[in-house]
Amino acid sequence: MSATPQDQAATVSLDGAMFIGAERVTGDGAEVRSVNPQTGDALDPPYRYGGADVVDRACRLADEAFDDYRATSPGQRAHFLERIAHHLTAATDALVERAHLETGLPTARLTGEVARTTGQLRLFAEVLREGGWYGARIDPALPDRAPQPRPDIRQLRIPVGPVAVFGASNFPLAFSVLGGDTASALAAGCPVVVKAHDAHLGTSELAAHAIRAAVTEAGLPDGVFSLLIGDGPILGGRLVRDPRVQAVGFTGSRAAGLALSQAAAERPEPIPVYAEMSSINPVVLLPGALTERADALATGFVGSLTLGAGQFCTNPGLVLAVADAGLDAFLRSAAKRVESDAGATMLTPHIARSYRTESAAVAAHPEVTVLARGTAADSAAPGQALLMSVSGEAFLADPGLQREMFGAAALVVRCDDLSQLTEVLRGLEGQLTATVHTADSDLDRARALLPLLERRAGRVLFNSWPTGVEVGHAMVHGGPYPATSDGRSTSVGSLAIDRFLRPVSYQDVPEALLPAPLRDDNPYGVPRRVEGKLTSE
Amino acid sequence: MSATPQDQAATVSLDGAMFIGAERVTGDGAEVRSVNPQTGDALDPPYRYGGADVVDRACRLADEAFDDYRATSPGQRAHFLERIAHHLTAATDALVERAHLETGLPTARLTGEVARTTGQLRLFAEVLREGGWYGARIDPALPDRAPQPRPDIRQLRIPVGPVAVFGASNFPLAFSVLGGDTASALAAGCPVVVKAHDAHLGTSELAAHAIRAAVTEAGLPDGVFSLLIGDGPILGGRLVRDPRVQAVGFTGSRAAGLALSQAAAERPEPIPVYAEMSSINPVVLLPGALTERADALATGFVGSLTLGAGQFCTNPGLVLAVADAGLDAFLRSAAKRVESDAGATMLTPHIARSYRTESAAVAAHPEVTVLARGTAADSAAPGQALLMSVSGEAFLADPGLQREMFGAAALVVRCDDLSQLTEVLRGLEGQLTATVHTADSDLDRARALLPLLERRAGRVLFNSWPTGVEVGHAMVHGGPYPATSDGRSTSVGSLAIDRFLRPVSYQDVPEALLPAPLRDDNPYGVPRRVEGKLTSE
Repeated sequence: MSATPQDQAATVSLDGAMFIGAERVTGDGAEVRSVNPQTGDALDPPYRYGGADVVDRACRLADEAFDDYRATSPGQRAHFLERIAHHLTAATDALVERAHLETGLPTARLTGEVARTTGQLRLFAEVLREGGWYGARIDPALPDRAPQPRPDIRQLRIPVGPVAVFGASNFPLAFSVLGGDTASALAAGCPVVVKAHDAHLGTSELAAHAIRAAVTEAGLPDGVFSLLIGDGPILGGRLVRDPRVQAVGFTGSRAAGLALSQAAAERPEPIPVYAEMSSINPVVLLPGALTERADALATGFVGSLTLGAGQFCTNPGLVLAVADAGLDAFLRSAAKRVESDAGATMLTPHIARSYRTESAAVAAHPEVTVLARGTAADSAAPGQALLMSVSGEAFLADPGLQREMFGAAALVVRCDDLSQLTEVLRGLEGQLTATVHTADSDLDRARALLPLLERRAGRVLFNSWPTGVEVGHAMVHGGPYPATSDGRSTSVGSLAIDRFLRPVSYQDVPEALLPAPLRDDNPYGVPRRVEGKLTSE
Repeated sequence: MSATPQDQAATVSLDGAMFIGAERVTGDGAEVRSVNPQTGDALDPPYRYGGADVVDRACRLADEAFDDYRATSPGQRAHFLERIAHHLTAATDALVERAHLETGLPTARLTGEVARTTGQLRLFAEVLREGGWYGARIDPALPDRAPQPRPDIRQLRIPVGPVAVFGASNFPLAFSVLGGDTASALAAGCPVVVKAHDAHLGTSELAAHAIRAAVTEAGLPDGVFSLLIGDGPILGGRLVRDPRVQAVGFTGSRAAGLALSQAAAERPEPIPVYAEMSSINPVVLLPGALTERADALATGFVGSLTLGAGQFCTNPGLVLAVADAGLDAFLRSAAKRVESDAGATMLTPHIARSYRTESAAVAAHPEVTVLARGTAADSAAPGQALLMSVSGEAFLADPGLQREMFGAAALVVRCDDLSQLTEVLRGLEGQLTATVHTADSDLDRARALLPLLERRAGRVLFNSWPTGVEVGHAMVHGGPYPATSDGRSTSVGSLAIDRFLRPVSYQDVPEALLPAPLRDDNPYGVPRRVEGKLTSE
C-alpha cells in the first residue's frame, strides 16, 4: 500500500533518515513505514532499519559529548530545554497533522500533547534553575576533632552518562522522542540516544528536527542527541548492551521491557533500566459511594475506560466492589454506556489485534460474564469497548485474570464482602495506580485499605479516575513490579531527573577544582545541606 | 579444636541460638563455630545452621510487622534507634572482647567501631527527626485551571518492605548485624532480617541482644528484627528469594554479591540489591607531589595500605604515577616501610589463604616486580604486606591485574607519561574511591583528570588516603559497578536511608487519611516542596 495524496502533504519535510548527532544517515536494513491505522495505508516516506554501525556511532558520539555536556551550567541546560520547547511549539501544526495520520489519535488530543510535551521541558528547565536536584551536601572539615580531625567532605549528584530511550506508541509526543525520559535525561546532563517507535516514524523525525535545531543554537556537542531507527529487539538489544550506555528509559509492553531489563542485567557492567510496563489500575468502589452515586460513578468510569480507545497505561481495567444493589445499579448504568460507545481507531492494526486477542481470552474464561460490548470502530485498527464481570472467588483462583488488555476493556470483580475484596487487592501485582471511591460513610473502610494500596501502587487516588497524569512536582508515574522494573522512581514529573543521577563525594578537593554547586560561594545559589541542615546559602 | 578457658569468659552469655523475632531458635543443620584467627581454635558456643523453616518464619514475621512498624512516627523510630545505641554502648566490653577473639582486630580499633556503630544509629535518629528523607511534595489543587482543573497531588516516600541484610567480615560491628544497612533500613521503616556472618557469630548474637532489648522496650512488633544463622549461598539464597523480602543490603565478595544480585533479578518480582563488592581504590601521585614530598607520601600510603591488615574496602591497592625520580624516591621509601611491617592477624584463616593466593598470582605475573614484602604475622591467619610494580603498558595489556587482593598488597603502575596514566584510569572498573595527590604545580593536571575520576568512583579524594570512611551526611561509600551493584546510592552516611524508600503519590486523598507529613498542618514539621519550592512549613 502506498500513501494517499492527503498523507503526502504532511510528509513534505520528511526524508526518512536517522540522526547520528547532526548527521543524517539512512539505514541499510529492511524498509519500514508507519501505517495510517484508520485506513491501513502505509505512509511515506519509507524509512530503513539501521544496523550495529549506527548504534556504535551514536553511542560513541554520546560518550564523547558527555563531559562537555555535563559541564554546562544548569542555566545553560534550562535554556537548551526551553529552546527545544520553542521549536516543538513552532512545529505544532506539522507534528499534530503527522501524528494524527500515524496514530489515529484526534487532533485536539494531539495538540494538547504538544503542550504537555513542551510544558514538561519547561518544568525541567525550572527544576534545573532551582538546583535542589543536585542534592548538594557539605560536611565541613573539623580540624580540631579528637581523636582524628574530620576532612572536608562534600557531595553532589552527577549524571550517569549516555542514556538510551525507547518511546511508547500511545503518546507519540509526551512519551516518545522528546518525552519525559529524554527531557529528564537531558536535564540531568546525560546525552540521549532514542530508538524511534515504528508506529510514528514521521512524528519522531519532526521531533528530532526540533531538538537538533536547539543543539545547534546552543553550540552543544553533536552527540547530545541521536535518533535511531531499527528493529526493536535487535537494535534495541544492541543499544542496551553498548558499554557506553549507562541507563535505559523505556515505556511499552511487559515482554519488551523484561527483555531489555534482562539484557542490561547480563552486561559485563549491569546498568539501571527504567521500564514502565503493565498495569491494570484497580478501582475500588466502596459500598457507601455505590449507594450514593452509582450512576455518576458509571459515567466517570466509562469515560476513563474509553478515553483514547483505552490506550493509557493508567486505564482502569479492574473494578473491585462488594456485590450489592449499588453495584448492580453501577453495572447497569456502565453497561448501557459501554454499549453506546462508538469505538475509536486504535494506534496500530497490530495493537488492535492484540487487544482483540487479549480481551477475547478473558471473555472466554468460563467464570467471566460479558456485560456489554460497544460498537467496533470502522477502521483498520478498530477499538471496541468491553465490560465483563467475575466473582471474587473465581478471580482469586486464576492469576491469569490479572492480564493487561491494552484497550478499553475492564473486568469487574464482584466480591462477597470487604474481606474478600481485601484479599483480592492483596493478591494483585504491582500497579501504577490504585483508586478508591468513597462516601463519607466509607472513610473507615478506606482507611483500612490504604496501607495495602500504598504497597501495591505508585499513585493512590480518591474519588477520581486514574487516566490523566499531571506533569508536576508531586506526581509519581511508577510503581512496584511489574508496573515498572524499578519502583523507586517516576517517569512523569520533576522527580524523574533522579533516575539519571548518582551521588559522588569530594573529600578535601581544593576549592578551585570543586564542582560549582559545592564551592563556598555557591555561584548557582542551589539549596544545600550543611551538616545535614537545609540551607539556601 | 575447642575453646580455651580465656575464650569462655567472653561467651558466658551466649547460647548459640538464632532470633526469630523474640523467639530463640536453634537450627537443625550443620554445627558451625567462629574461629579465633590468632590461634586457629574454634570458639564456644557452637551454633547450628537453620533451614528453609527459619527463613520462612522470620520473613513472615517481618512482613506482618511491616505496617505497624512503618506507622510509627519518625520520633518513635528515632528513639528506638537511640535505645539500640544505648544497649550497644552498655555491652561495649563484651562486644569488644568477643569481637577481638573472633576477628583478631585490636581492641582499640573495636572500641572505636562500637562508637562508630552507635554514632551511625544516632545519625539516623537525627535524620528521622529532621524529616527531609520523606521527600514530601505538595502540588495543591487548582480548581479553576483551564481547560481542566488540577487535582490535589501530594508525594511521600514510603519504606519498601522487609529488608534482608548480609553483614561483612571486616567490620564485625559497623558493617554487620547493626551496621549501616540495618540502621538505614530500620530508620526507613523497614523490618530487617539479618544473616549472621559465620566469622563472628558471638559478636552477632551480642548485637542482636541489644536490638531485641530495644524492640521490647519500644513495644514494637517482634518481626521488626530477626537474626538467622545459615550456610551463605543456601540460606542467603532462600532469604533473597523470599517473596516478602523487598530489598537486600550486602557487603562482601564480588562472587557472593553477584550471586545474590542474580537471585534477586530472577525472582518473579525482582527486587533491588545493594551489594558493596570489590574495589582497588586507585591513588594517583602527580609529579609535583612526588617531587615535593615522596617520603611523606610513602609514609601515608603504607600506613593506609597496612591498616587493619589491609582489610578495608577502601584499601589503596593500586598506585598510578609517571615514572621519574620522584616515583623512584617514593618507591624506595615505601619499600623500606613495607619491609619493616610486622604483619597482623587477618580476619579468618580462609581470608588469609585467599589473600596469599590472590597476591601470589599477581606477584607471579611475568611483568610484575615484587618490590618489598613485610614480615608474615605469627598467626593462624597471617597477614603480610606486599608491594609490587608493573609498567603502564603491561597493566593495560592485562585486565586481570585489576583483581582485588583483599589484604595489604598494592600494585604500583609506572606510567610512561600522563597520557598513559589517563589511559590506565580510563580502563579501570568502577571504584569506591579514587585519590589524587597534588602539589600546587599539579592543579591543571588534576583538573584534567577530575571528570574521569568522577566517572569511575563514588568518592574522590585529594591529598588524603581512602581508608577511613566518615559517617556523615556528605559521605558516599558506593560507586559504579563492580564497586557496588547499584552506584545510585551509598552504604555509609545519612543518604543510605534512600535505598529503602520509594515515592508514592496521593491524589485527592482526604486530609483525614493523608500520611501525617502531607497533611496541611505538617505535624512533624518536615521540609516539603510546595509547587516545587522548598519550604519548612
